[in-house]
Amino acid sequence: MGKFIVIGERIHCISPVIKKAMEEKDPEPILKRAKEQLDAGATYLDVNIGPAEKTGEDLMKWAVQLLQENFDNVPLCLDTANRKAIEAGISVYNRSKGKPIVNSADAGDRIENIDLAAANDAIAIALCAKAGIPSDNDERMMYCQEMLERGMSLGMEAEDLWFDPLFLVIKGMQDKQLDVLDFIKQLSDMGFNSTGGLSNVSNMTPKHIRPILDSTMVAMAMLNGLTSAIANPCDARLMETIKSADIIKNNSLYADSFLEL
Amino acid sequence: MGKFIVIGERIHCISPVIKKAMEEKDPEPILKRAKEQLDAGATYLDVNIGPAEKTGEDLMKWAVQLLQENFDNVPLCLDTANRKAIEAGISVYNRSKGKPIVNSADAGDRIENIDLAAANDAIAIALCAKAGIPSDNDERMMYCQEMLERGMSLGMEAEDLWFDPLFLVIKGMQDKQLDVLDFIKQLSDMGFNSTGGLSNVSNMTPKHIRPILDSTMVAMAMLNGLTSAIANPCDARLMETIKSADIIKNNSLYADSFLEL
Repeated sequence: MGKFIVIGERIHCISPVIKKAMEEKDPEPILKRAKEQLDAGATYLDVNIGPAEKTGEDLMKWAVQLLQENFDNVPLCLDTANRKAIEAGISVYNRSKGKPIVNSADAGDRIENIDLAAANDAIAIALCAKAGIPSDNDERMMYCQEMLERGMSLGMEAEDLWFDPLFLVIKGMQDKQLDVLDFIKQLSDMGFNSTGGLSNVSNMTPKHIRPILDSTMVAMAMLNGLTSAIANPCDARLMETIKSADIIKNNSLYADSFLEL
Repeated sequence: MGKFIVIGERIHCISPVIKKAMEEKDPEPILKRAKEQLDAGATYLDVNIGPAEKTGEDLMKWAVQLLQENFDNVPLCLDTANRKAIEAGISVYNRSKGKPIVNSADAGDRIENIDLAAANDAIAIALCAKAGIPSDNDERMMYCQEMLERGMSLGMEAEDLWFDPLFLVIKGMQDKQLDVLDFIKQLSDMGFNSTGGLSNVSNMTPKHIRPILDSTMVAMAMLNGLTSAIANPCDARLMETIKSADIIKNNSLYADSFLEL
């Protein structure tokens, strides 16, 4: 198996600094955050420009070119509800380090993002949900199959659908955590790639607890076959755990320096 | 499922301080280390007096009484190759907080420790090994069955056999780690209790790496159903991970203060 893939989540317009930089097309804050995440071990960078209904196409093109020119064609995950902006981003995207990722499709209103990924030879994050939170794993699997069939009917390879089990918040849905982990196992047993917003797990818990819960969850999820996460690579504990889990799974060879690699 | 049980490993004659205290019957160093481990969240305390061929009976009695009198009949794990010393310890042991644990039996030379546990209504740690490291999980399971049959033929409850999969050192046996985790899953699927010397995993790795590898491994092992470990409860990262895994498994109820509980 390949090493776990971290999609760095920190270029996100929910951050006031990034929002302002995107509005003003100011490269520095975006480049700074990109460098931090890449130095910390991210493979992909997520670029979340928000709904971006008016200026999305122009903005996504600018961001894709800015990041790829400055970081050796770093592979990117294009994250917006504006489909034209994703297509615009892909039109200027350099694939030498990896296909672009469309973030994200689901089995409901966003099913057409599968079509978009298929038409553009992109990877799609495929959220196993339709409207709201799936009630159980049978429902998750039904949505997974719907998206798989749609993608394959359009000529996608199954490996380009990265299924998202939908991580749930412990504070409120503590009794559903093992279901999510079991679903990851089901995806893995079928040979599928998977990813998801890991930090949902610790949402609303005290700040000092979040890295502890997230890293415990990622170790468990990786044992069950999770292949990627959308996460904060600047969380040192999380990255140490991911690297250690890759060692235990024999995905990367142990060396005393493995945490620095 | 019940919460994970940590057997504190730090009252061990391999420590010069503890060795000296045992030789001189000096209570203070032993009580200090017991308190540290209980404060950090240990349920059981392991008491390893070494081979103790000559003075073992007397020493184990002294240690059991010392610890139980000072810590409200704390349950203990009696750890020595001297069977008479284990029996002597059990003869003065107060069971109000839990049965004594015999550490340990195996399917080879130490099989009679199953008999000892059965005769004394004790728990036995049952190492799934005979001579050396088992070559695969079929061999582990064969030893497990041998010890199970022996214990049950002597009237033991299966729950009083805590099967030890034998954790292996990453540095040298990296490719065996998933086998160990899979065996833990097999034990769990059969409803068995399990335990083991978790820190074997990180043996010989740099000191700063050990808590990281151990805590990643314990999260994975707990997902697969490990019910206990012989470990260092004073490793804060390890205990945080164990408490978080109990939350994710819904073994203990989430509260913002769960790490302090």
